[in-house]
Amino acid sequence: MSRVHIVVHLKEGVRDPAGEAVQHVLRDMGFLVEHLRIGRHITLDVDSAAGDDAARLGREMAERLLANPVMEQFSVEVRS
Amino acid sequence: MSRVHIVVHLKEGVRDPAGEAVQHVLRDMGFLVEHLRIGRHITLDVDSAAGDDAARLGREMAERLLANPVMEQFSVEVRS
Repeated sequence: MSRVHIVVHLKEGVRDPAGEAVQHVLRDMGFLVEHLRIGRHITLDVDSAAGDDAARLGREMAERLLANPVMEQFSVEVRS
Repeated sequence: MSRVHIVVHLKEGVRDPAGEAVQHVLRDMGFLVEHLRIGRHITLDVDSAAGDDAARLGREMAERLLANPVMEQFSVEVRS
């Protein structure tokens, strides 16, 4: 069983109003943060002998369902 | 400038209906996944000389604003 992490974020040029709102609040609280973006972090288990297979499955799931290729980009990481 | 990643997930015992729905669809598509959970992945930059400071700030922001301590748990990672 491999644990797959798929992180989906809006692409660089796409505005993230929720992230901007949170950044604004943090700055009001005194945290001098910049470039705050909010994405989705999906974790799941797949029954896969090799880590490579799990990564390939993760990319396929992201491409076919979990990410919107027009506005979003994703990364996949496998931890056995 | 340090890049801080804050990942917020529902605690183990808390149901994740959105994650269950996505897992159901993936299984219908033929992906035999289990334990799928959907969390938030927040990235931000802080102006911090030492990585330790950035991690401490990340934890403070998560505790005070980004995570709900009743239902959620978080992890913080710093990549300079």
